[in-house]
Amino acid sequence: MKSEIRTVYWKKGEVVLIDQRLLPLRVKYLRLRTAKQVAKAIKEMAVRGAPAIGVAAAMGLALTAYHCRSKDRDRVLERLRKSYEVLRATRPTAVNLFWALNRVMRVAESAGSADEMRNRVVSEALKIAEEDIEANKRIGENGAKLIEDGDRILTHCNAGALATAGYGTALGVIRSAYAQGKKILVYACETRPKLQGARLTAWELMRDGIPVKLITDNMAAFLMQRGEVDKVLVGADRILAKTGHVINKIGTLSHAISAKHYGIPFLVAAPFSTIDFESTLSDVVIEERDPREVLYVGNMRIAPRGVEVWNPAFDITPPELVTYVITERGVYKPDELKTLSSGV
Amino acid sequence: MKSEIRTVYWKKGEVVLIDQRLLPLRVKYLRLRTAKQVAKAIKEMAVRGAPAIGVAAAMGLALTAYHCRSKDRDRVLERLRKSYEVLRATRPTAVNLFWALNRVMRVAESAGSADEMRNRVVSEALKIAEEDIEANKRIGENGAKLIEDGDRILTHCNAGALATAGYGTALGVIRSAYAQGKKILVYACETRPKLQGARLTAWELMRDGIPVKLITDNMAAFLMQRGEVDKVLVGADRILAKTGHVINKIGTLSHAISAKHYGIPFLVAAPFSTIDFESTLSDVVIEERDPREVLYVGNMRIAPRGVEVWNPAFDITPPELVTYVITERGVYKPDELKTLSSGV
Repeated sequence: MKSEIRTVYWKKGEVVLIDQRLLPLRVKYLRLRTAKQVAKAIKEMAVRGAPAIGVAAAMGLALTAYHCRSKDRDRVLERLRKSYEVLRATRPTAVNLFWALNRVMRVAESAGSADEMRNRVVSEALKIAEEDIEANKRIGENGAKLIEDGDRILTHCNAGALATAGYGTALGVIRSAYAQGKKILVYACETRPKLQGARLTAWELMRDGIPVKLITDNMAAFLMQRGEVDKVLVGADRILAKTGHVINKIGTLSHAISAKHYGIPFLVAAPFSTIDFESTLSDVVIEERDPREVLYVGNMRIAPRGVEVWNPAFDITPPELVTYVITERGVYKPDELKTLSSGV
Repeated sequence: MKSEIRTVYWKKGEVVLIDQRLLPLRVKYLRLRTAKQVAKAIKEMAVRGAPAIGVAAAMGLALTAYHCRSKDRDRVLERLRKSYEVLRATRPTAVNLFWALNRVMRVAESAGSADEMRNRVVSEALKIAEEDIEANKRIGENGAKLIEDGDRILTHCNAGALATAGYGTALGVIRSAYAQGKKILVYACETRPKLQGARLTAWELMRDGIPVKLITDNMAAFLMQRGEVDKVLVGADRILAKTGHVINKIGTLSHAISAKHYGIPFLVAAPFSTIDFESTLSDVVIEERDPREVLYVGNMRIAPRGVEVWNPAFDITPPELVTYVITERGVYKPDELKTLSSGV
């Protein structure tokens, strides 16, 4: 097994990100020194995946604190609040972004001096990254119990090391099961329009020697009909505790409906920070992205000039289609989530 | 409205095909003079769509007859049989290919002289093309009765003029309803891997001024969940009369399952020649195509080297997911098809 993938990390006042837009053809790291640069990287999806976005955003605040030389506590806090707004406005759907930013800001606000604020903000951001990897390993352990030897698992988008600080959520479960010696075949759906499945999941799994087969998204139902899928396993960008709805990459709902139709378990793996204890469905903003993501693949145009496009980045899977939600604290049916405490 | 699209036609000993691989960026016609060239065009999907393949193959036989100068009846027939084998081997799933080839061969076999054979084969091929357009217009009339003013119709792949000798099957129904003054919005699914929806359906509908919005295949279920789809309407490559199964472009099954889940009518429009009165499910060969169709979009590679791929070109929608099959002879529930006669 190769060295672990480092999706996002802190290095002496720089946030280092693997540029996911270039994978798998090029492995290139971005070195960012401002919160604004981090915001741009999130918006343009150089870094993506709900937990990775949370970690990157927290580190974006850390950059602001680290490079602000003011001795004035309130001045540093003011700068942080500006960065907070810029980072917060990048992507509206994933809840980990807001969770991580709020967590760092609470720490900042409680600091008595500028220096204390700098130190505490940076260390809180690093702690969020470390905790994310730890959480993923526990998600992996909890989820692996649901995976049987010989399972053929269909996944969508990339809920892997590249979507987190490391190890992955859905792919973390697969890594854990595989490490236990279970034989597994992963069907990776390519995940139009941004092709995270083809580009990232396939790359990540091949790197670890885990068998993977690539399909287009629209082949999933036919594969299930043929009896070749034992589990569907995906990540999440937001899970509503009140109702059990799962918001995840566009295409997830389609797989969930097909899985239900063919009686296949539908599993969601996500850190507890993905669970939103406040919002109801009507509060959730589904991000609609640039039509060019649909009109082009890379630089290649695939549709006529002037055609209208609808490009939602996420969809909403209702609780009746979800078998289990796997977190670092345990495995829950979606209607059990409302009985839990956010633990904040 | 612009001039009608001419997908495939006969011109003085040449078969002229619009090269669908280059649409919508380039409109280029191929001029073919041998059955082998026609076979290559079918195999490489310069021409595609079950009815269009049938017409092109029939014209491929016409090329052989037309250019064979032998005075010996049996010699011409022998040449035709060779071309028949080459054309027959191009694509295994669509039934119109075999239907059209067999129809032309029956006419050839009944000819008494070489000259008669030449004339009859050419005129039978042209007749198949004319009849296809006529059938599509009647499919359009029959189907338009099922379309209401204001309908938002989701379609997959291209079952349009480009998939037939002209006018189209599913898009023929839409053209007819639109011509009746019904307000319609078409959601075109892009249809990975070959993107016939993005490239062909969007182009065809925009050309006729019919409102169209492009989505990726995996957005269809979310659109249905939001209540924004009134009908799903697709073509077919083969329909099994005995059981009512519909074989169509990969991705169709997924839409059918979602439509059922959300209580949306699922309509299939196809000429009677698409109905297979002989085969059972186990007789149907689902074509698996080159992995490169999934690994590349145009010249752009989108997945890591060495990754395995599954690339079936079609899927199978069971009768319980199909509301109506619309043909030129009438509109049927899938379980009514077995009571009909092939009329051969």
